Amino acid sequence: MIKVGVVGGTGYTGVELLRLLAAHPRVQVAAITSRAEAGVKVADHFPSLRGRYDLAFTDPAAAPLKGCDCVFFATPNGVAMGQARALLESGARIVDFSADFRLKDRAVWEKWYKVPHASPELLAEAVYGLPEVNRERIRKARLVANPGCYATAVQLALLPLVETQFVDHGHLIADAKSGVSGAGRKSEVDLLFSEASDNFKAYAVKGHRHHPEIIESLASLEGVSGRRLGLTFVPHLVPMVRGILATVYARITADTDFQVLFERRYEKEPFVDVLPPGSQPETRWVRGTNQCRIAVHRPFDADTLVVLAVEDNLVKGAAGQAVQNMNLMFGFPEAQGLEQIAVVP
Amino acid sequence: MIKVGVVGGTGYTGVELLRLLAAHPRVQVAAITSRAEAGVKVADHFPSLRGRYDLAFTDPAAAPLKGCDCVFFATPNGVAMGQARALLESGARIVDFSADFRLKDRAVWEKWYKVPHASPELLAEAVYGLPEVNRERIRKARLVANPGCYATAVQLALLPLVETQFVDHGHLIADAKSGVSGAGRKSEVDLLFSEASDNFKAYAVKGHRHHPEIIESLASLEGVSGRRLGLTFVPHLVPMVRGILATVYARITADTDFQVLFERRYEKEPFVDVLPPGSQPETRWVRGTNQCRIAVHRPFDADTLVVLAVEDNLVKGAAGQAVQNMNLMFGFPEAQGLEQIAVVP
Amino acid sequence: MIKVGVVGGTGYTGVELLRLLAAHPRVQVAAITSRAEAGVKVADHFPSLRGRYDLAFTDPAAAPLKGCDCVFFATPNGVAMGQARALLESGARIVDFSADFRLKDRAVWEKWYKVPHASPELLAEAVYGLPEVNRERIRKARLVANPGCYATAVQLALLPLVETQFVDHGHLIADAKSGVSGAGRKSEVDLLFSEASDNFKAYAVKGHRHHPEIIESLASLEGVSGRRLGLTFVPHLVPMVRGILATVYARITADTDFQVLFERRYEKEPFVDVLPPGSQPETRWVRGTNQCRIAVHRPFDADTLVVLAVEDNLVKGAAGQAVQNMNLMFGFPEAQGLEQIAVVP
Amino acid sequence: MIKVGVVGGTGYTGVELLRLLAAHPRVQVAAITSRAEAGVKVADHFPSLRGRYDLAFTDPAAAPLKGCDCVFFATPNGVAMGQARALLESGARIVDFSADFRLKDRAVWEKWYKVPHASPELLAEAVYGLPEVNRERIRKARLVANPGCYATAVQLALLPLVETQFVDHGHLIADAKSGVSGAGRKSEVDLLFSEASDNFKAYAVKGHRHHPEIIESLASLEGVSGRRLGLTFVPHLVPMVRGILATVYARITADTDFQVLFERRYEKEPFVDVLPPGSQPETRWVRGTNQCRIAVHRPFDADTLVVLAVEDNLVKGAAGQAVQNMNLMFGFPEAQGLEQIAVVP
Repeated sequence: MIKVGVVGGTGYTGVELLRLLAAHPRVQVAAITSRAEAGVKVADHFPSLRGRYDLAFTDPAAAPLKGCDCVFFATPNGVAMGQARALLESGARIVDFSADFRLKDRAVWEKWYKVPHASPELLAEAVYGLPEVNRERIRKARLVANPGCYATAVQLALLPLVETQFVDHGHLIADAKSGVSGAGRKSEVDLLFSEASDNFKAYAVKGHRHHPEIIESLASLEGVSGRRLGLTFVPHLVPMVRGILATVYARITADTDFQVLFERRYEKEPFVDVLPPGSQPETRWVRGTNQCRIAVHRPFDADTLVVLAVEDNLVKGAAGQAVQNMNLMFGFPEAQGLEQIAVVP
Repeated sequence: MIKVGVVGGTGYTGVELLRLLAAHPRVQVAAITSRAEAGVKVADHFPSLRGRYDLAFTDPAAAPLKGCDCVFFATPNGVAMGQARALLESGARIVDFSADFRLKDRAVWEKWYKVPHASPELLAEAVYGLPEVNRERIRKARLVANPGCYATAVQLALLPLVETQFVDHGHLIADAKSGVSGAGRKSEVDLLFSEASDNFKAYAVKGHRHHPEIIESLASLEGVSGRRLGLTFVPHLVPMVRGILATVYARITADTDFQVLFERRYEKEPFVDVLPPGSQPETRWVRGTNQCRIAVHRPFDADTLVVLAVEDNLVKGAAGQAVQNMNLMFGFPEAQGLEQIAVVP
Repeated sequence: MIKVGVVGGTGYTGVELLRLLAAHPRVQVAAITSRAEAGVKVADHFPSLRGRYDLAFTDPAAAPLKGCDCVFFATPNGVAMGQARALLESGARIVDFSADFRLKDRAVWEKWYKVPHASPELLAEAVYGLPEVNRERIRKARLVANPGCYATAVQLALLPLVETQFVDHGHLIADAKSGVSGAGRKSEVDLLFSEASDNFKAYAVKGHRHHPEIIESLASLEGVSGRRLGLTFVPHLVPMVRGILATVYARITADTDFQVLFERRYEKEPFVDVLPPGSQPETRWVRGTNQCRIAVHRPFDADTLVVLAVEDNLVKGAAGQAVQNMNLMFGFPEAQGLEQIAVVP
Repeated sequence: MIKVGVVGGTGYTGVELLRLLAAHPRVQVAAITSRAEAGVKVADHFPSLRGRYDLAFTDPAAAPLKGCDCVFFATPNGVAMGQARALLESGARIVDFSADFRLKDRAVWEKWYKVPHASPELLAEAVYGLPEVNRERIRKARLVANPGCYATAVQLALLPLVETQFVDHGHLIADAKSGVSGAGRKSEVDLLFSEASDNFKAYAVKGHRHHPEIIESLASLEGVSGRRLGLTFVPHLVPMVRGILATVYARITADTDFQVLFERRYEKEPFVDVLPPGSQPETRWVRGTNQCRIAVHRPFDADTLVVLAVEDNLVKGAAGQAVQNMNLMFGFPEAQGLEQIAVVP
């Protein structure tokens, strides 16, 4: 049993983390912070948690985070980088949901996030928390940067292709579609029901913040040079609450059995499911679960490969992957507490 | 560990039952029948169940149901009444999701369902499976008639009122709203996305089949005479997948503390949660769970009581209540396998 | 051709008004104000209006509203009451979408809106803009208080009942359901897609601001005494963009043919359509149009009457009714510019 | 004034056509056929049309179509090809919504549609009804094959690129997303609200029937050879009723100002709107209208061009384009009856 703290428990990834932790047999949640809701019972704020949490939100300043074994930051960018060092020094290990520690290159980070980085000395130590790439390093990490939701889906669709030489690495396309919860629980007009419902659009076409994260992570793979990687990434907003579907297009340059390529790459992965040939995965097949399900297509046997990957942006794309990382960090079975089955319909 | 059979596993209540049974530690699912999908792997038909079921659907004729301890009928009206007797004689106990055994009065049943009843001699034996009313009888039952989804929500909202004398029993109003999954997985034009989405309507205003079920069940309560019960019940179709909200109106005829009345009535119930005063329950607070959450209001302290009850129509309104009944019938802890937390958002 | 000004053109009722005015042959829109968007082309802010408006938003302070024949206030409560007097003195006539002039009783107004009224002397002059009640007074009015969206639907469902003596006026129930656009284009968490989608709830059960408006308006009908009117009004939030369905329940105290009662009451009304017996109106039947469609039911021929009324909250419930009022005020054909057909599906 | 017949008036494209024709000043609708609904008043079947149509549906066999100047076939594939010749001989001109006459190559048609073509001799005469390509030929046509919804959006996004030599024509990608109404009013399980809502998926990845139509039409452009055209087209199902967004990717092979290329290509088109640089079009901006709005992006100034095109699949993708074609065929102003403004929100 470990003591866990949650910083920023009122957003969508926060409440999803609380849902998962409530069912985890090795975790005791010791503190959940929220400046705005300090003093309010967690179960009053989220009645879906009635009967599961007696805790009230505590002010971040007063929260006993330093006694925790593991602290999750389910906070906006900029929070974790200010508090990480002190917590690490207190002996806690950290899983950060934000982008604060996802890039190694400080200049790139500051270009995209437009503020100076508060703890640049931790960038080198932080481990990018994609278990399918960094499992062993995560086990030993003190500070894990949990990947972004798009970044997880797009990388899992691309990994077997980027690690091998069967497609043109310089002209990859990821047309990604996300449910609205991916934007967080922010009161912005664009995210209103009356704006997003019965509607569809692309956004951030000029460049999305998950783009450098994907590029840097893929480029760090053994034998891959970042310069050769070219990725066009266009996110779209789907009128649904949860779920991401990434449709990846790659030009085939050498023949292989791509179905087998993917199956072999992921055969031991507990949370990546390569579907039978011909499958067309739906986001609801993974809703509420930590699974990423992938299908591989080669229409008309022509030279364009199409890979479809679905995940729940709040689970494998956030809170579930964070728990998976915690399990690795603390030597628990990797899938513990992550056995949920998708709610269908 | 008991052996369980599921008759009709391809509808919405069927797949929900499979989701719940997969997580139940005392259950081994031995057979899942479907005429249309016989031979198809369950996990191929419902990819959300990949990794959880190795079984294929079997033809009902060939299914080894008679060796089962418990058989669930997740079938349309008319199926269970034809097969119940033989199964009971084989020693199986039955939970029927359909309306076949919900009414005691054969004439009323045949009036509403417009066919002769195939097993009228079982009507008297069948126990109406609302644990909040019939818990002890369910424990001993061989044949449980699982209540309808509307009927569950409306009765839980009405029980404390009908069992006492504080409101006019002759003029109760239940304005109920259901997600579309309540209509089942039927390919009917009215249920198409393009018909039901971004739309709202009442239906069955002339009379819904759950009406006689509610009336008969409430009238059977000790000290209640059916003649005095008057209920106007109008169902509405909400553009959401799951969930029922029943808004019940009753004219107050004698004063009492209705909040306390409800809290006392349900204080020992594991799946009925009376919310704090002022609460306005949302269907998503119970999505995917077996909870019914209830709030009691008396606007302007005037003489109309307003009771709000939410449930997931596929769980407390169908598959979850069926598992709750099975738990009672087989002496398992009543809440076993029903610990899911609502997926929010 | 009249010159029209629109104050507050960036909300949902504002853009809907602009859609309707663009198609009105007797109107020239001379100014559209918005403090936040001053200087921005209207068609850049609302690309759905590209090609229809060359105007940019102007700052309210600078807008040439005083030269307008008619000024619409599509603003939150509290704006029109501060500007109405000066505009009236300049010769403009006003249609106010807000609640500022909907109540005659200043004390009731201030109790519900919790600020002092800025122009109480205009309350008596203002005409409540429900043409089905006040048509002749609207024709001559300088200042029309456009009714609320719920208030319009509920009153149209109740009018034939309150004007006659066939039901108990003291215990009326209006269970109303609205699309999310009714709450306006406000960046509030409750209105986010991820909160309101795939969800259903009641709100403002303790008392909604449209309640006193309905009561005062109905009580002012000839021969009706406010004291005898008792209305329980519970609004609900439907996961759809537009539309209101009001389900009204009334206890029958004297027999009559209610279908005929409604048909006669509305036979000359251009925008109230009493549907054939047995109809179950859907909100999409009136989406984007100024129609209110009503059905009358008496389930089981018992003593509870059920009236169903649908409208588009942004049209008959706001901008369309405002144009209808303008047509009356300026002697145009009442339905001019309001001939749209609902977009179905 | 021309006499118009509508064959198959009960589907989604049919009712949309009736909405548009009701507002068209040069059209008298003389007959609307439906085998299933023969004898039923059109306005009873579609209450949104109450007050606009007195006609009842007539049986196709009995319908006076031969007296019509223009007959629309809003029918499934296979109907028009059986009736076209007789109608043409009677002097009627035809706009067919189905795929029956969209391909010139009979063998390709029969491969995709899997039945023998009933009127192959008409394939050569039929004009593909994309006014942006075939305007002059449409004016003189007796038989117009109205393009598919995807085919319209994808071609309008591709035309300026395929007509010039700035991108690689051999590796075009169209990632298209459609609302559910595009699949028609068919009672299929996949189209149910409970399947399609809160969900997202790709479908027909192996090959969609609009693919050969797009290829053949583009290949027929002057100076384009079909052999050089390579298009990967993946459709996706969006949980919304109407709307298509096509995201087109092309590899740039020669530099130009693509914004200007698109603006020039479409500057005289009444229904193609090239948006300002940086725009991210939303499907609701064109909901219920005949507009296609297009934005051109070149992320990071790299060598991949991204074109975004939105249309309403039932209007520019079906009924609106059909009316546009009719206007051309009968010498009416091209935009007559097509002035609707999008209903936003």
